[in-house]
Amino acid sequence: MAFPKGIIELVDSLYQQGVNEAVICPGSRNAPLMIALTRHGGFKCYSIADERSAGFFGLGIALKTGRPVVICCTSGSAGLNFAPAVVEAFFQEVPLIVLTADRPKEWIGQWDGQTIYQENLFGKHAKAFFDFETDDCSAAPLTAMAEPKGPVQINVPISEPFYPEPGFILENSSAIFQNETLAKHKAQSTKNKVDFAYFNQAIASAEKILVTVGQMEHNSIFETLSAYGIPVIGDATSNCGSTIGHDLLLADESMWPVLQPDLHIHFGKSFVSKRIKQFLRTHKPKQSWLIHPNPIGRPDPFLCLTHVVNTDSNSFMEGAEWSSKTWNSWNSAKIDSKQTEFFANPSWTELHLYNQVTEAIEQKEAEVHIANSLAVRYINWTLAKFIKTEVYSNRGTSGIDGCLSTAVGAAQKTDKLCISIIGDVAFQYDRNALWNHYIPANLRIIVFNNGGGGIFRNLDGAKDLPELDEFMETRQGFTAENTAKDAGINYFSASNPSELDLNAFLHNQGPALLEIHTNSIENAAELRKYMALFKA
Amino acid sequence: MAFPKGIIELVDSLYQQGVNEAVICPGSRNAPLMIALTRHGGFKCYSIADERSAGFFGLGIALKTGRPVVICCTSGSAGLNFAPAVVEAFFQEVPLIVLTADRPKEWIGQWDGQTIYQENLFGKHAKAFFDFETDDCSAAPLTAMAEPKGPVQINVPISEPFYPEPGFILENSSAIFQNETLAKHKAQSTKNKVDFAYFNQAIASAEKILVTVGQMEHNSIFETLSAYGIPVIGDATSNCGSTIGHDLLLADESMWPVLQPDLHIHFGKSFVSKRIKQFLRTHKPKQSWLIHPNPIGRPDPFLCLTHVVNTDSNSFMEGAEWSSKTWNSWNSAKIDSKQTEFFANPSWTELHLYNQVTEAIEQKEAEVHIANSLAVRYINWTLAKFIKTEVYSNRGTSGIDGCLSTAVGAAQKTDKLCISIIGDVAFQYDRNALWNHYIPANLRIIVFNNGGGGIFRNLDGAKDLPELDEFMETRQGFTAENTAKDAGINYFSASNPSELDLNAFLHNQGPALLEIHTNSIENAAELRKYMALFKA
Repeated sequence: MAFPKGIIELVDSLYQQGVNEAVICPGSRNAPLMIALTRHGGFKCYSIADERSAGFFGLGIALKTGRPVVICCTSGSAGLNFAPAVVEAFFQEVPLIVLTADRPKEWIGQWDGQTIYQENLFGKHAKAFFDFETDDCSAAPLTAMAEPKGPVQINVPISEPFYPEPGFILENSSAIFQNETLAKHKAQSTKNKVDFAYFNQAIASAEKILVTVGQMEHNSIFETLSAYGIPVIGDATSNCGSTIGHDLLLADESMWPVLQPDLHIHFGKSFVSKRIKQFLRTHKPKQSWLIHPNPIGRPDPFLCLTHVVNTDSNSFMEGAEWSSKTWNSWNSAKIDSKQTEFFANPSWTELHLYNQVTEAIEQKEAEVHIANSLAVRYINWTLAKFIKTEVYSNRGTSGIDGCLSTAVGAAQKTDKLCISIIGDVAFQYDRNALWNHYIPANLRIIVFNNGGGGIFRNLDGAKDLPELDEFMETRQGFTAENTAKDAGINYFSASNPSELDLNAFLHNQGPALLEIHTNSIENAAELRKYMALFKA
Repeated sequence: MAFPKGIIELVDSLYQQGVNEAVICPGSRNAPLMIALTRHGGFKCYSIADERSAGFFGLGIALKTGRPVVICCTSGSAGLNFAPAVVEAFFQEVPLIVLTADRPKEWIGQWDGQTIYQENLFGKHAKAFFDFETDDCSAAPLTAMAEPKGPVQINVPISEPFYPEPGFILENSSAIFQNETLAKHKAQSTKNKVDFAYFNQAIASAEKILVTVGQMEHNSIFETLSAYGIPVIGDATSNCGSTIGHDLLLADESMWPVLQPDLHIHFGKSFVSKRIKQFLRTHKPKQSWLIHPNPIGRPDPFLCLTHVVNTDSNSFMEGAEWSSKTWNSWNSAKIDSKQTEFFANPSWTELHLYNQVTEAIEQKEAEVHIANSLAVRYINWTLAKFIKTEVYSNRGTSGIDGCLSTAVGAAQKTDKLCISIIGDVAFQYDRNALWNHYIPANLRIIVFNNGGGGIFRNLDGAKDLPELDEFMETRQGFTAENTAKDAGINYFSASNPSELDLNAFLHNQGPALLEIHTNSIENAAELRKYMALFKA
């Protein structure tokens, strides 16, 4: 039997611990891994040719399942193309198991084909590196799941022959069971012992408490706080249901002293809004707590951190005792009325269209994947809000590189509509997201096409540069139509209100792409007009 | 003046040393670098949005100019997308200067947007890492050009504001001159002192000398050897004009003892052919020399290396004294006649079509970029040969990831037809190569579309796997038509002889893409038939 030793056992060990999804990129060197995964019987396997897209597709699956997903590739530069997804997973704290096939060690540096230095390929951006020949790789799933979750690499040197004899059956494939090691681990590991006496005392004595929620999975754990008069703010990516338009409220800097809390408690990961950071950095609370089971280092984005509480958000909310406060400065009624008035007079510009799209989607059973970089900002400025809609976004590295692939991956694991909201540059960048056989019927893509990187036209300083057109916006005449056509996706296009039928698009029978064409100069002018409303 | 300190000087220092091409990927953090490069006046600048493609585009330029090319990106995952091109440049020994903009150090690990660990981002795959704040970056060009040439990274932390005031003029831009440091350096640095007495003695006393040429730039330095009866063999990527069909000659293993040399001299870099490696590994010469100014490590792909001669190929050929030999086993007349007979009966399969394409191109003034992985193999098996046509191929890592982008970059720097010969998977993988404003009139693309990764069907063991269709070939129905259309490229398609007009395609007035559709099962059968001719 010529099958490389230990590979079947490795794959089965992953499975026994609860890993059961694998994205496999075609290659010769990794054929034994592919065979072990596909013939095992316990894995749902996907074949995706572009490793960059495949990595993000795997990330999308992991976002939905909460378990490590295998992404597997051949030797050489293939693994480098996984890097954008691996690094996003590292900072977004999503578990991945990266299986890189490799040449035997003696061939590295010998001018052999597809041979690079694969040891520690992702540097600090993988939580652990396992050498298949010398390390105990069975620790990989728990390492990926330990807080902070993240990617691990298993490098597997493989010698020829790669292919088993015809009829070869895996020994383990007939006795499949799967225990729930990972699920149990997840439930237990984040419930660290917390000295609630101390924290509850601080909560009781604080007059002004501000709860900020960074990126988080969809939740309702902060709902109770409104009854105590404690404001909870978060971007759309916080999924916490906050309706306070904090970014617009903070646009009026004369309000900042009034909005300064005594006690600031932060849950979840990063914020999109730059303003909340600038505000807290300059108007520091007496105490600022970060609630996280085990953050990397001591992240202090607000430059005012006083305590890290090593537990998960749920446990903290369950253990903490809240008391009523009378502080009501974080009231966005004024903002809301300005917004209502503004959006009552729509124009064919991105701001209004994002509002309209948000409103329409929120009425469906849907999940949205908001792309970097302009889309994820617009979504925070609209009057309409995603409350019951789950919001995802690659805010680990905030790259535009795999936003669509992540959505396509996640769409495999939900029955709801799975909607990617994305600009034309991010769409085009990641168009290979649609180059596979896994475009499900529930996938919807809304491309905001302003003919280039419109975000730069909104930036003071950048907008007046003579280089803006050529070297920042990268004006491009591409539309998504042909890419959609190639992928067998129904294409809708709208350049004016009469062409826009969101319901027809959302209710399409199969996957569909809607491209909304706008003018970036008009978009920028409308956004400036809008922002000016909140500055004074 | 708010412009970040030192950036103008950095850019000018690159220029003063002979660097004058820059591929810039749009971003905000790297805007000062972009401004310094574009306003300097001495740089030809290109704006390309997808960093993966941009990196290879820069590699293509460097292949033609022989000088380091700047590739510049914003912070975060952008630099990771450069990695495939950087690593290819490392192993193909092509100079690149990677300018990565970064956040100020205090923001790393602070959940700030687009912030990752950028220090030594490419690990062992960059020749040097320069921290803009602490290192002398002026050494970057010479480091990239020192043998073995390769990529270097300069990481540039930049604080806001990123944008200069309107009307800002660079101080150095009025006094442009450019010395030729790099050219001088190149001419001098590889002429190391060699003990020719020793090597000439060995040449004189050897009866059977075999010269093998790995990947190399187009050359005629080995022509003289035929007069001495010394066989010179090389793949198409060796560009050495050899007409000996070494791979087919070696297909008959019973000939190996007769073909064994006493003295083996290797010039250039790696071979595509696996057979020449297997042959020399098992039929070791008494001596085997590698001619290279300064190879990384002591690469020994043939497992018989006895000497490394630290000089460049030209210097060695000039300094060595050759004498006539009577060994004539490396005679491929028998092979040639079998080939002639075989190709006289064409069928609509890749092997015949590669032969036809090679023949047609060789009659033009052209350069070809042969993609991995099947194309670069077929090109070695045809009867027609590229002799005056320059042949390029990304054989550093042998990845399919940037083959087309490299060709598009190289096409900027030649007046000849620049032709990418590429399979459908490699084409689709890198289709963003065509997403920019630099598609020149001399670009031609020939896509061999067999509906998937046809290479796997040629591999014993792989071809009979039940997983072949789904997990190796990744059958796909994509054609290149829509991608060509999006890029404004004339599209030609051929599914039978009457549809194939190579001259019309090659003489097209602007850039053009020809897609040749074949059947992968028929291709594999024809190739097996062909290979069987040479086995006995």
